[in-house]
Amino acid sequence: MAWRGQSVLLEELLFNTKHGLIDQSLHSRMGVETTNGDGFGVGWYGTGTGPGRYRSVSPAWGDANLRELAAHIASPLFLAHVRATSGSAVQETNCHPFRHGDWLFVHNGVIADFPQLHRDLALEIDPSLYPSIAGSTDSEVLFHLAVTYGLEDDPPGALERAIGLVEDTARAHGLEPAVQASIGISDGERLWAVRYSSEHRSRTLFASTDAETLHRLHPDNPRLARLRDGDRLIVSEPLADLEGAWHEVAESSALVVAGDGALEHRAFRPRVTV
Amino acid sequence: MAWRGQSVLLEELLFNTKHGLIDQSLHSRMGVETTNGDGFGVGWYGTGTGPGRYRSVSPAWGDANLRELAAHIASPLFLAHVRATSGSAVQETNCHPFRHGDWLFVHNGVIADFPQLHRDLALEIDPSLYPSIAGSTDSEVLFHLAVTYGLEDDPPGALERAIGLVEDTARAHGLEPAVQASIGISDGERLWAVRYSSEHRSRTLFASTDAETLHRLHPDNPRLARLRDGDRLIVSEPLADLEGAWHEVAESSALVVAGDGALEHRAFRPRVTV
Amino acid sequence: MAWRGQSVLLEELLFNTKHGLIDQSLHSRMGVETTNGDGFGVGWYGTGTGPGRYRSVSPAWGDANLRELAAHIASPLFLAHVRATSGSAVQETNCHPFRHGDWLFVHNGVIADFPQLHRDLALEIDPSLYPSIAGSTDSEVLFHLAVTYGLEDDPPGALERAIGLVEDTARAHGLEPAVQASIGISDGERLWAVRYSSEHRSRTLFASTDAETLHRLHPDNPRLARLRDGDRLIVSEPLADLEGAWHEVAESSALVVAGDGALEHRAFRPRVTV
Amino acid sequence: MAWRGQSVLLEELLFNTKHGLIDQSLHSRMGVETTNGDGFGVGWYGTGTGPGRYRSVSPAWGDANLRELAAHIASPLFLAHVRATSGSAVQETNCHPFRHGDWLFVHNGVIADFPQLHRDLALEIDPSLYPSIAGSTDSEVLFHLAVTYGLEDDPPGALERAIGLVEDTARAHGLEPAVQASIGISDGERLWAVRYSSEHRSRTLFASTDAETLHRLHPDNPRLARLRDGDRLIVSEPLADLEGAWHEVAESSALVVAGDGALEHRAFRPRVTV
Repeated sequence: MAWRGQSVLLEELLFNTKHGLIDQSLHSRMGVETTNGDGFGVGWYGTGTGPGRYRSVSPAWGDANLRELAAHIASPLFLAHVRATSGSAVQETNCHPFRHGDWLFVHNGVIADFPQLHRDLALEIDPSLYPSIAGSTDSEVLFHLAVTYGLEDDPPGALERAIGLVEDTARAHGLEPAVQASIGISDGERLWAVRYSSEHRSRTLFASTDAETLHRLHPDNPRLARLRDGDRLIVSEPLADLEGAWHEVAESSALVVAGDGALEHRAFRPRVTV
Repeated sequence: MAWRGQSVLLEELLFNTKHGLIDQSLHSRMGVETTNGDGFGVGWYGTGTGPGRYRSVSPAWGDANLRELAAHIASPLFLAHVRATSGSAVQETNCHPFRHGDWLFVHNGVIADFPQLHRDLALEIDPSLYPSIAGSTDSEVLFHLAVTYGLEDDPPGALERAIGLVEDTARAHGLEPAVQASIGISDGERLWAVRYSSEHRSRTLFASTDAETLHRLHPDNPRLARLRDGDRLIVSEPLADLEGAWHEVAESSALVVAGDGALEHRAFRPRVTV
Repeated sequence: MAWRGQSVLLEELLFNTKHGLIDQSLHSRMGVETTNGDGFGVGWYGTGTGPGRYRSVSPAWGDANLRELAAHIASPLFLAHVRATSGSAVQETNCHPFRHGDWLFVHNGVIADFPQLHRDLALEIDPSLYPSIAGSTDSEVLFHLAVTYGLEDDPPGALERAIGLVEDTARAHGLEPAVQASIGISDGERLWAVRYSSEHRSRTLFASTDAETLHRLHPDNPRLARLRDGDRLIVSEPLADLEGAWHEVAESSALVVAGDGALEHRAFRPRVTV
Repeated sequence: MAWRGQSVLLEELLFNTKHGLIDQSLHSRMGVETTNGDGFGVGWYGTGTGPGRYRSVSPAWGDANLRELAAHIASPLFLAHVRATSGSAVQETNCHPFRHGDWLFVHNGVIADFPQLHRDLALEIDPSLYPSIAGSTDSEVLFHLAVTYGLEDDPPGALERAIGLVEDTARAHGLEPAVQASIGISDGERLWAVRYSSEHRSRTLFASTDAETLHRLHPDNPRLARLRDGDRLIVSEPLADLEGAWHEVAESSALVVAGDGALEHRAFRPRVTV
């Protein structure tokens, strides 16, 4: 889940919504895993230098501190993630968002056969970045590959190269490449979302409609009345069943939310570079 | 879940069974809560003095230590519990089993309106027991009430008085009494199970059939072949869909598993005593 | 530790000072316990409604989240506490600050023989407050007694009655009263500090000198140059060995830091009321 | 700490001794760090297949589960470790003992400049072992290097090669090699201890004197009376100040405790192999 727009208390979106992320941690409706109880994390931009981060191995639904922080931290741009491990340890260093300088990264998905590919992928990471890998997940390796390939200049392009490498490495091991990647990235200004899977059966990803359209469609909805021009929410699952409120991000595509909330789409095609 | 019989590794029953307790922590089929991820606990009799106990706030499905301990601790009598909080904090002191001397106690259920009744119930606990209340749950208060009322002499009788008091206190507050109580108790020799609810719509509770019958019904099942005379398992949900393997404990009844595995049933009728 | 003054990042006082609270968690110089590693907590006023709170059972020195939050939360008024348990469980509900509405409370000290007194003290708490006791510490009981006795009208006066009751209850049990109480309280506007012990050998408590005096004494100190009129820090141990920077709060006295930073002292004399 | 001898409850050595390991976690007398509160672990051989392990990020002194397990698990051979992190995260996967098949490994010490050397050292690990690295410590890398170099055939020899590689890699980076390594290893039968540091200023390491000598020296000591032939304890710090009870393991040496408790010493000289 990712928000870009007016500054809001985190709880507005994490707790005070039907089918919000905390609810999804306990009862996901669209996810591969119906329970996402293996930790969570939230990263936000606001007070202080660079993004702040709170991660915990507790299930999000029961973490008293998350509820406190969400009620007392406001931010115009934040990302949140609930985790269902595909095997790696339940520990804070494996919780998203991952961070590099001003950049935050959340990944809903998996690299199939990661144990077999792990070493080869780790070797491709820029040696200067290697010591900053603190956990043991596929997602953190994918993030560091993207940083290696120029995330800071062109996030979707760097991810195309990173995922291209993963797929190529799988093939080199005689394995069918199988990357699932619903990804959110931010530098504190813009927000990127990627929806991709090797099999072209990606997990769902939705962006909220612009405020003006929502006000016109649902003139009497008090929650929507508070939305302003430029507010955008990216989610794996719609927060509420509201007609016209969400448009699905297309399979194999990337989305940029600019500073003014404008959306820009582009195709997402992993590629191998030498 | 409770086991009484030959000494087995805890993992045999916690992990190596279809629909075992760990599986139930993630996907309960019959419970009120489909996810029981707010901590867990296991208590066992064996090496050392009195029962040992391991409790954790992690979801049982992801706790690496539980898997280790279950693979390296064997016991002829143990109780295990997965928790879904009805409001009190997720902390070890709120995890079952509760303990008093050699006695262990697990409770699957709830005392409705507990916050309103908490103080009155706590005052009924024997003052010498008061300081040993370490957590904040309805279950721990219920246990200490039962100890106050003679749990060590007559566990079902003490529980009838304890639950009678809870129901009476609710009525005194102008509330409809609503106790849900699937309970397991042991002193290291015998095992008691109680199934009761004020509304007579109790959560499920099952006891395993005796080994001889199971061997006759399923002569080719290798797991069942390992069962011996006197082995008994009490569960909230059957571990596997095996014909004749389970008989449901009747509504409003108590069950004793004696040292030789013999089952004894009796009615369970909460009563108020002055 | 408590701060009242200009809005600062929590890390300024928690981490970026010699002998700061985090350092004290590992190596206290003046405390009864040299290690305060049984959890910690911080409560602050700022964004959102009422005080926010972050508590953890980890030692403060190693908690990655505390470091993150301290770097990204700013506040003009906050209290922090590191804990060394005197016996009760290491769990978040036992970590300070305790909270009631807008009020925060931290206690460095102990009620001797608390297990014997616990029940009697708990019964004196206003029954409507009883369900909000979430943990098992002497400190939380003392706080709720003070709320019962009018903390919101006169914090030191309510504490005089609360501690008077504790001492009287100890005597009624044939015990020598022994309360140790370095206490910090706030309602979000003012800040109170109390230094008291039954034996008149209280733990240390210091208040920072006013900014003007500090600027005159140490004209070349860049840290002190940032202090403004009205800034006040209350600590158990001085943060740095700086001449004239701290004045010790007198034995058996209370201190109020008003909205403009002005200090007011009064005697603190526990008393029994019927 | 490591024990090899008659089967004892873990608590006998972890808790029921003056200056035992749990006490050392709070107040180490000889260690570089006076507080070892960043998690702990214990590994033991006994019931079940292979070694069992319990690790936690809590300080050992306050972990309720450790106290329970120590009172209810008996073992003839176990290793325990308390951790003071030199920078890597406080998480269970960073807690000792590390394990490979039947082998357990504990390391009290540090590889200086590990972040700079990490990648080069990780590349030397047998690729088939790479995916089993679950944490981010220098100790776990050192262990996997030793496994790569034949730990299962000759533990001290494999460690000589592993540490030789570390020192050589440091030199290749233009750094002064600085390995501190008090190490305990077991396969469930024998126990190895290594004391080494690049600067030849190793942390302390002691082995207990044989039972017969201890009985003769201290005929009236009831604790020592329970010792039997073949019992051996290896510790970083002596458990009690008892004349003749401990002999220090020499600088740059390795020690084997055979199945009958006999001690064998050999020199320990890291070496580079190509």
